[in-house]
Amino acid sequence: MPNYPDVSPLVTRRLPRYYRQLTELMRSGVERISSREFADMIGFTASQIRQDLNCFGGFGQQGYGYNVATLRAEIGRILSVDKGHRAIIVGAGHLGVALANHIKFDHCGFLLTGIFDIDPSVLGQTINGCLVRNVSELESFCAEYKPMVAVLCTPPSAVPELVKKLVSLDVKSFWNFSQSDVSTFYPDNIVVEDVQLSDSLMNLSFHLNEKLSEE
Amino acid sequence: MPNYPDVSPLVTRRLPRYYRQLTELMRSGVERISSREFADMIGFTASQIRQDLNCFGGFGQQGYGYNVATLRAEIGRILSVDKGHRAIIVGAGHLGVALANHIKFDHCGFLLTGIFDIDPSVLGQTINGCLVRNVSELESFCAEYKPMVAVLCTPPSAVPELVKKLVSLDVKSFWNFSQSDVSTFYPDNIVVEDVQLSDSLMNLSFHLNEKLSEE
Repeated sequence: MPNYPDVSPLVTRRLPRYYRQLTELMRSGVERISSREFADMIGFTASQIRQDLNCFGGFGQQGYGYNVATLRAEIGRILSVDKGHRAIIVGAGHLGVALANHIKFDHCGFLLTGIFDIDPSVLGQTINGCLVRNVSELESFCAEYKPMVAVLCTPPSAVPELVKKLVSLDVKSFWNFSQSDVSTFYPDNIVVEDVQLSDSLMNLSFHLNEKLSEE
Repeated sequence: MPNYPDVSPLVTRRLPRYYRQLTELMRSGVERISSREFADMIGFTASQIRQDLNCFGGFGQQGYGYNVATLRAEIGRILSVDKGHRAIIVGAGHLGVALANHIKFDHCGFLLTGIFDIDPSVLGQTINGCLVRNVSELESFCAEYKPMVAVLCTPPSAVPELVKKLVSLDVKSFWNFSQSDVSTFYPDNIVVEDVQLSDSLMNLSFHLNEKLSEE
C-alpha cells in the first residue's frame, strides 16, 4: 500500500519547496515560525500551507506555529530523503557531468553510484568520485548494485531501447532530461520525473512576451 | 495588454509539450493528426487537448483533426519562439556550461549572447561560440545588447544582489537554476521561471517510495 494514496500530486510537488525553506531557516538558527511568516517567505498563503500539511496530519499547533526542526524532519521523512537508494547517470555529456557535480543526490534520497556512456574519450574518467563506465557494463553493474533510479542524459533517440533495458534490469524510476517522453512508453510500471528544460524556457518565453505586450 | 490575459498558467505550461510533439511529427513527415491520436502520443485525453487549444481559438477541424504544420506554427507564435530576445548566462560553472552547450536557445525564443562569471580561470574562454566575460562588464554589456533574460547559475547567496543589479539594467526575466526563490524578491516587476532540480529529484524520491511501498 502506498503511504499517501489520496494526496494530490500537486500537493506533494510543493513539499520539496517547504523542505528547502525549512532547511534555510534551520541554518539561520530559527526555531519556530508561524504559518503566516512561513507563507510570506515562500510566497503562498498561510491557508494553502496549512491545507497542504493537513494532508499528512498537520504538524502545527494553534498559537505556536511550527517547530522548524520537527516540521523539516517530518517533511524529509515523507519525501524519503534519507533512503539512500542508488542512482546512476546514463550519458556523461555536459548535462550528465553538470548533474553529477551540481546535484546533492544524498540530500534528495539517493546515492550517485555510477555514470555510464559509450564515448571512449570519457570512459574511465572520474566525475565527482564516480567512475564513468561503458554502457555495456550496465547489466553486471545493476545485478550487483541494484540502482533504483537512472538519470537519463542521452540523446532522445537512445531512450526507448535504454529504458527497456533498464526496466528489465529492475530499475524502478527515471529522472529524465532526455527530451523524450519516457512516461508514454511505460505508463504503469515505473516512476518518471521529466525535466524538460526546453519546455521550461519556452514557458518563460511565453510569459516574457505577455509581460512585454503589457508595457 | 497581454495577448492571453485569461488563460490559466497550467494551460500555457502544456503548450511547449504540444509544440515539441508536433515538431517530432513534422520531422516524421506526418501532415495531419486526429486529436485522439495526438492525445495518445502525449498521454493526455483528447478532450483536454481540445480544451487547451480552444483557449487560443481552436485550430482543429471537425472530422479532419489538426494540420500538423499549421498547429505547430500557431503554437510557436503563441509561445513567441521566433522572437530571438537576447539571453545571458550568469555563472559559468558546470551547470552554466551545460546549459550553454545543451539548450537550443534559438528554438525557444532567445539568442544566447553572453556568459558571465567572476572566476579568472574561466574568463576569456568561449563556450558554444559565446565569450565568458567578467561580471563587472554586465553594465556596459546590457547597455549595448539589452538582454531580456538572464539565466541564473550562480550560488544562491549571490542571487539577491545580482537580480537587483540586472533588474536595474532592465533585464525583464530570469531563468533561475540557483536554488534561490527569485520570485519572492521581485514578485511583480519581472518574469521568473524557477528550475529547482533538487525539488524535482525529491519529488521523484517521494513517488519512488510510494511505488515501493505498494509492492
